[in-house]
Amino acid sequence: MSTYKGFEPKWFQGEIPANSYRSVFKWGAPEKIKAPGERMFRDVLRRFGIGDETFHDYQQNLGLDEVKFDIPVLLADEHIAALKAIAGEEYVRSDDYARFSVAYGKTMYDIMRARNKVVENVPDVVVYPDTREQIEAIVAYATLHKIPLYVYGGGSSVTRGVECVRGGISLDMRLRFNKVVKFNEEDQLITVESGISGPKLEDLLNDAVKEFGAKRAYTLGHFPQSFEHSSVGGWVVTHGSGQNSTYYGCIQDMVLGQSYATPKGVVTTDSHPRKATGPDLDQIMMGSEGAFGVLTHVTLKICRHMPETVCRFSYMFKDWQTGITAAREIMQSEAGNPSVFRLSDPEETSIMVNMYGVMESPLRHLFSVKGMKENEMCLFLGFTNGEKGYSKNTAKNVARVAKRYGGLSLTGYVCKGWEHGRFSDPYLRDTLQDFGVLMDTMECSVNWSDMARVHAEVRKTVKARPNTICMTHMSHVYPQGGNLYWIFIILENDMEAFRAFHASILDAIQRSGASMSHHHGIGKMFGPWLEGQLGRNEYAVIRALKEYFDPDNIMNPGGTLGLDLDEGEKKFLKG
Amino acid sequence: MSTYKGFEPKWFQGEIPANSYRSVFKWGAPEKIKAPGERMFRDVLRRFGIGDETFHDYQQNLGLDEVKFDIPVLLADEHIAALKAIAGEEYVRSDDYARFSVAYGKTMYDIMRARNKVVENVPDVVVYPDTREQIEAIVAYATLHKIPLYVYGGGSSVTRGVECVRGGISLDMRLRFNKVVKFNEEDQLITVESGISGPKLEDLLNDAVKEFGAKRAYTLGHFPQSFEHSSVGGWVVTHGSGQNSTYYGCIQDMVLGQSYATPKGVVTTDSHPRKATGPDLDQIMMGSEGAFGVLTHVTLKICRHMPETVCRFSYMFKDWQTGITAAREIMQSEAGNPSVFRLSDPEETSIMVNMYGVMESPLRHLFSVKGMKENEMCLFLGFTNGEKGYSKNTAKNVARVAKRYGGLSLTGYVCKGWEHGRFSDPYLRDTLQDFGVLMDTMECSVNWSDMARVHAEVRKTVKARPNTICMTHMSHVYPQGGNLYWIFIILENDMEAFRAFHASILDAIQRSGASMSHHHGIGKMFGPWLEGQLGRNEYAVIRALKEYFDPDNIMNPGGTLGLDLDEGEKKFLKG
Repeated sequence: MSTYKGFEPKWFQGEIPANSYRSVFKWGAPEKIKAPGERMFRDVLRRFGIGDETFHDYQQNLGLDEVKFDIPVLLADEHIAALKAIAGEEYVRSDDYARFSVAYGKTMYDIMRARNKVVENVPDVVVYPDTREQIEAIVAYATLHKIPLYVYGGGSSVTRGVECVRGGISLDMRLRFNKVVKFNEEDQLITVESGISGPKLEDLLNDAVKEFGAKRAYTLGHFPQSFEHSSVGGWVVTHGSGQNSTYYGCIQDMVLGQSYATPKGVVTTDSHPRKATGPDLDQIMMGSEGAFGVLTHVTLKICRHMPETVCRFSYMFKDWQTGITAAREIMQSEAGNPSVFRLSDPEETSIMVNMYGVMESPLRHLFSVKGMKENEMCLFLGFTNGEKGYSKNTAKNVARVAKRYGGLSLTGYVCKGWEHGRFSDPYLRDTLQDFGVLMDTMECSVNWSDMARVHAEVRKTVKARPNTICMTHMSHVYPQGGNLYWIFIILENDMEAFRAFHASILDAIQRSGASMSHHHGIGKMFGPWLEGQLGRNEYAVIRALKEYFDPDNIMNPGGTLGLDLDEGEKKFLKG
Repeated sequence: MSTYKGFEPKWFQGEIPANSYRSVFKWGAPEKIKAPGERMFRDVLRRFGIGDETFHDYQQNLGLDEVKFDIPVLLADEHIAALKAIAGEEYVRSDDYARFSVAYGKTMYDIMRARNKVVENVPDVVVYPDTREQIEAIVAYATLHKIPLYVYGGGSSVTRGVECVRGGISLDMRLRFNKVVKFNEEDQLITVESGISGPKLEDLLNDAVKEFGAKRAYTLGHFPQSFEHSSVGGWVVTHGSGQNSTYYGCIQDMVLGQSYATPKGVVTTDSHPRKATGPDLDQIMMGSEGAFGVLTHVTLKICRHMPETVCRFSYMFKDWQTGITAAREIMQSEAGNPSVFRLSDPEETSIMVNMYGVMESPLRHLFSVKGMKENEMCLFLGFTNGEKGYSKNTAKNVARVAKRYGGLSLTGYVCKGWEHGRFSDPYLRDTLQDFGVLMDTMECSVNWSDMARVHAEVRKTVKARPNTICMTHMSHVYPQGGNLYWIFIILENDMEAFRAFHASILDAIQRSGASMSHHHGIGKMFGPWLEGQLGRNEYAVIRALKEYFDPDNIMNPGGTLGLDLDEGEKKFLKG
């Protein structure tokens, strides 16, 4: 039932056939579809300077056909039989759908290939392991026979991290490797199998009283935008980070024990709260993105679930520089860290205030009274967590600093608008892209003293492309700096053109001196840039670890972390 | 001028000859000497069950002789000339005193060797570098000619970390490599040369307004007991931790950039606030204890210096288990972390309340009214830091939890007593040892659920030795557990007997399942235990990094992290 008053495109909201391409590439839950509201749709049209006509017909394949391709299974029958002996007959599949469903992640390049039935880099077989012991046996077997081995966790990689460039085996963790191994309330630790999804883990922790007989409810506090569609293992091996990281920390702050099945045997770290026993093994393994071994068990620190202590806030600052300065002051004042902390640049602010209807509310008048201009002002929103007094003190400090920098309080209302869409906004990607509107993201990590310059330089590159919407925000913040997260929206139906554009942004980030990834990881897509980012001697350390763990290059081979690219591939990928 | 009412031993308080053994082995500042007060002295006698007679004569050499030995300089003249060309003629020394002064650290085994003129493991030459470039040139030269290379930072190692087992070169960083490279107020970062001492750095930060033209004063917040006599480089390469770590974090939480001169070239990490660009290079290098290369520059996060917001507290709990439970609750309640956080076990509590005169105050009566018994009750003290509201909220939560667990508030008075002696108590070691009273420490890291058991098991081993004082406290605390820090005081004049006792405690820690080092590091003394602690496959990763960085084994060779011990040495060292 449409709520549009004017023309509404025929947003695809039909049923998605079970074995179709779309069922693989669509974002998130199979049954969930989201179309833009009229306000947002009109705003996009206005910004592109186009009329309704672009939305009369689909510009892209909807991908409703059944997945079908002709890539032979090259893995020898004896190997397949051996895998079946380990994991069970029915848990080793080599049909087209199983193979394709673990081939791609969720970067636009993946989606566009899937829409166009460009099938490449599928594994020979997909194995659905049940236990850590099975995975250890599979890694040992693959090592012995030099069979490439890949892992598919939640499938939300935006770096081509899961892609089976050399064929072989992909371990699809979703089906069975998703159980709780141990819940330890006294130490506030939970040990899980790496394939457990964000929502499953979080629900179990919230229901710990019922599920584990605990004294109270818990949370992990890790909520990336891909929350619904990502796994603990993926978070850990890519150095992920959730939207509440400013309070709860990034994934590496949460991990207190891991076990990996590697070609050199099982590597397991202990869960002592802290140690001075040589280089930190947990940190050596984290971020290895499957190139050293397969992560099996993870022990995570958990926190008390106290939704009743949340204090929401939102403020408008007169411009970007003022917002940055206030953000820095909040993070350096040692008054407690907010949990969600989002400062939007002028373009993103403009889009958000339109989307949330702020510009149709009495606030519009207030902005003008306060001398705030639509393409200059910056929205800052978030909320606090922690014990009641801590949470209140944090919010009080935010208010104090915001006031000092002339911030106009918009109350918690705008924050609620953001919360409402925080996990569902990515569903818009598919619906919009049917009409050629392509939306993707990039991100980087920046020190305060470089923040304004990096923003200006990278934005200039993005905006150099005609008719490009470029929304930027800061959403993971530290006393020393924060990330910049770029959402770009373009009209583009050619996937190679998209890739070249994407690469040009990465180049701009690297030229600016920012770190090329705050929490998306590197995968195969960003791999060619990594040595340039870290430096030759520095990158050589990662290469040395790879050579130690995986001398035959069977663990996520084909460019992960840029480790085994030849010069030709590097050039190709860098665009 | 004595304040003793009864018999007072002739505590050695004379001048220490400039080139004497004692000038090397004594703790801390050259001119500073500390003798125990009468209360403490009487308490020690009472606990050992001995009379004054043990203190009529010195039981140990005072070490006032000039350092002199016959260990030839084996390094060829051409190499010495080359080092002089790099560092300057007068900054390369091979006299006995220079060589001996960088040979040992501050474990009792070191002190006893020095007292007995047992000189071993001295370098051929000592170089006093001035710049990072000089150190890089020296590492390159040593690599080319396969000359063993050691580093001496502050000299407070209690793990034989600095000992030049294979001769060669020792870089003494104290003299010249101690400058500030860059102060960045906007990002709250300071970059220093690794030889800078704790007090020098802290003073500069506290005086940042004057020193750097900053807007306000800063602190690093890193105050190990060895503060006066340790260096930034030592903290970083051994994974050090200060007494305020519960608020400010351990050293690895403070480091945001490092540069190492390694046999494989210079490895420099960037200072972005966070990144997802493969395994964390900072963490790979930290904890390497000189075995991968020489740390040159360090970039550290700094915090605002706000001494005016400190809230002191001290409480008495009725027993150890109650204290542990309250400590855990404080750390898991998410109300802010105290900065100093010390929970003493009954034996330590008993010694402290006597030392601070608590048992001669009206509190003694109150303890008895509250049913608290001297050999059961546990002292908990500390203070908070941070912005005023944060600091107050943290202290409020401490008070709330303490009350819930029946803690008796002793106000901030006892905490001030502890603060008064926090850096000077180690000076007592030398004075007492002249009479054969030997004081040393061990520590480990433990989860909450193991805390009481590990304490009981390790304590049992320590107390199995007749007449042994064993004080234990928890002083670095996390939501998942904390450390246990053991101070043992024994009557012992034989250094091999000491070493066997020390080894038996380490064995007990390892058997108990605790981590064998929370923040002392491993060095050469604990090296033989490391593989057993981490596991074979896990330890092999550190070995692989060593083989990559230093294939000729010239960086801190001779057992650092247990990397190049043969089985004979292992057995010998394990006692």
